[in-house]
Amino acid sequence: MARVINTASAQMGPISRSETRRDTVRRLIEMMREAKARGAELVVFPELAFTTFFPRWLIEDEAELDSFYETEMPGPETAPLFEEAKKLGIGFNVGYAELVHEQGKKRRYNTAILVDPGGEIVGKYRKVHLPGHDAPQPGRTHQHLEKRYFEPGNLGFGVWRAYGGVMGMCICNDRRWPETYRVMGLQGVEMVMLGYNTPYDHTQHPDIDSLTQFHNHLSMQAGAYQNATWVVGTAKCGVEEGSNMVGQSVIVSPSGEIVAMASTIGDEVITARCDLDIGKRYRETIFDFARHREPDAYRLIVERKGAVPPPM
Amino acid sequence: MARVINTASAQMGPISRSETRRDTVRRLIEMMREAKARGAELVVFPELAFTTFFPRWLIEDEAELDSFYETEMPGPETAPLFEEAKKLGIGFNVGYAELVHEQGKKRRYNTAILVDPGGEIVGKYRKVHLPGHDAPQPGRTHQHLEKRYFEPGNLGFGVWRAYGGVMGMCICNDRRWPETYRVMGLQGVEMVMLGYNTPYDHTQHPDIDSLTQFHNHLSMQAGAYQNATWVVGTAKCGVEEGSNMVGQSVIVSPSGEIVAMASTIGDEVITARCDLDIGKRYRETIFDFARHREPDAYRLIVERKGAVPPPM
Repeated sequence: MARVINTASAQMGPISRSETRRDTVRRLIEMMREAKARGAELVVFPELAFTTFFPRWLIEDEAELDSFYETEMPGPETAPLFEEAKKLGIGFNVGYAELVHEQGKKRRYNTAILVDPGGEIVGKYRKVHLPGHDAPQPGRTHQHLEKRYFEPGNLGFGVWRAYGGVMGMCICNDRRWPETYRVMGLQGVEMVMLGYNTPYDHTQHPDIDSLTQFHNHLSMQAGAYQNATWVVGTAKCGVEEGSNMVGQSVIVSPSGEIVAMASTIGDEVITARCDLDIGKRYRETIFDFARHREPDAYRLIVERKGAVPPPM
Repeated sequence: MARVINTASAQMGPISRSETRRDTVRRLIEMMREAKARGAELVVFPELAFTTFFPRWLIEDEAELDSFYETEMPGPETAPLFEEAKKLGIGFNVGYAELVHEQGKKRRYNTAILVDPGGEIVGKYRKVHLPGHDAPQPGRTHQHLEKRYFEPGNLGFGVWRAYGGVMGMCICNDRRWPETYRVMGLQGVEMVMLGYNTPYDHTQHPDIDSLTQFHNHLSMQAGAYQNATWVVGTAKCGVEEGSNMVGQSVIVSPSGEIVAMASTIGDEVITARCDLDIGKRYRETIFDFARHREPDAYRLIVERKGAVPPPM
């Protein structure tokens, strides 16, 4: 019996700084309806989908900074998205800035949740790999202050049984790190959902930045193939507050092949029929981890954080 | 000051079962000379470069099996390759079946060595990820008995300072596993050399096997990009004893881009000017491991060998 998730990736064009959550949620709902109308039972939205990508600015006023975060999910402004999902009977994955008080401290995370078609949150993930800097860098037209505004996620790379499969999440820069997919792969993940906001000037080296689209896809395709999992990558893209961000949202098969891709840099829904059993054939042959992996040879991956070249 | 290694990948067409080591070494020497004439100071040969790919057969006679292994390196038949390298002042990487007595036992490894332009062995690697089976599989026209004829390498993924950079090796199936490159990346590797023998029917699933070329490149390109290293991948290819093997030997930049690729499935030398400092720009930005990796979140990679999905 085929195990299929009809899946949508709902790419977003820019969100201006002045756009309200009410407006943004309306855009998300419109795409959710389209996804449902096209047969999807799950729709994947971008990272930080309710506001503009605020880490591009140094924001020193704490109340102003807080205004970009959600203190409850759903909250008054995001609840309509959950209600619509329940009404339509479609699940979703969405990213947002999360502000919580934990262990007596105000904590900020770059978070994503998985919501089932009944409107219930079934999984939460907090971004582990924070890119950028913790202080403004001279000479940049746009900052990238994720290391200032978030702490690394403390929930690990979890997976959840939902939609008839094993579902995992990661966010944006996580997709470049093979460890991300592997930790989920070792938990039998069958679909990794991720959203991203990726400016073309993220490294400030023109030779690297000119390859942003290629690197975006290469990372997701390798993660999919090497872990026999579907990967659904959803961009917020286009020119947002002067920052030019990559689109090319994709749905990637466990073969590593891109089977659906956005053709615009605006709000756009793409869909694919994701047969989870495609991954099974890889897991039983070339990527039968139990037969082929050699963890003793991998110890450095956890024993060492930075690279240490041999002495000269 | 640019740190450049002018590098050649010397792809081999088929080696028949009846071909002698003397004949094979002559082919290798011919390509070594061409590599040198085209400015290379290092040439990368395939996996198991001195004989046909014997794991495709069940060989029950121990003396016959032993005949495919090298008991010394260089030995009488392989020494001319070392002598020619020394004469030309070019280094090389080559793979061979290694038979040794260690800890009172006869041991078999799928091995590669790095030889400097003076003809001295400076590094040895034994293949960690052995694909295939330890017993013949019914219904296969060609077996893949690496798990029968070799034990997993016991030297780890080392790196060596040579050619002005940090050099690493792996072999064939190792290239599909992100752990391979990452362990070397954590030692600052700047060039990974690897040879492969990859039949198109390696999984026996036509939908997977038809993507053999794509998967070959995807794995090496991702490994290069995600670890900011050059990757030189050299095939033994073409139709060898009825087995159809993938070519498309490549030199991959730390950007993940293929900068040189073989255009035949026979003996063919490709070259590239490999500037090690291209990798430096990646290591100082997006892949600054010390700033961005989160090893605590990766523990499962070493704690678990096989995948364990969550309970139903």
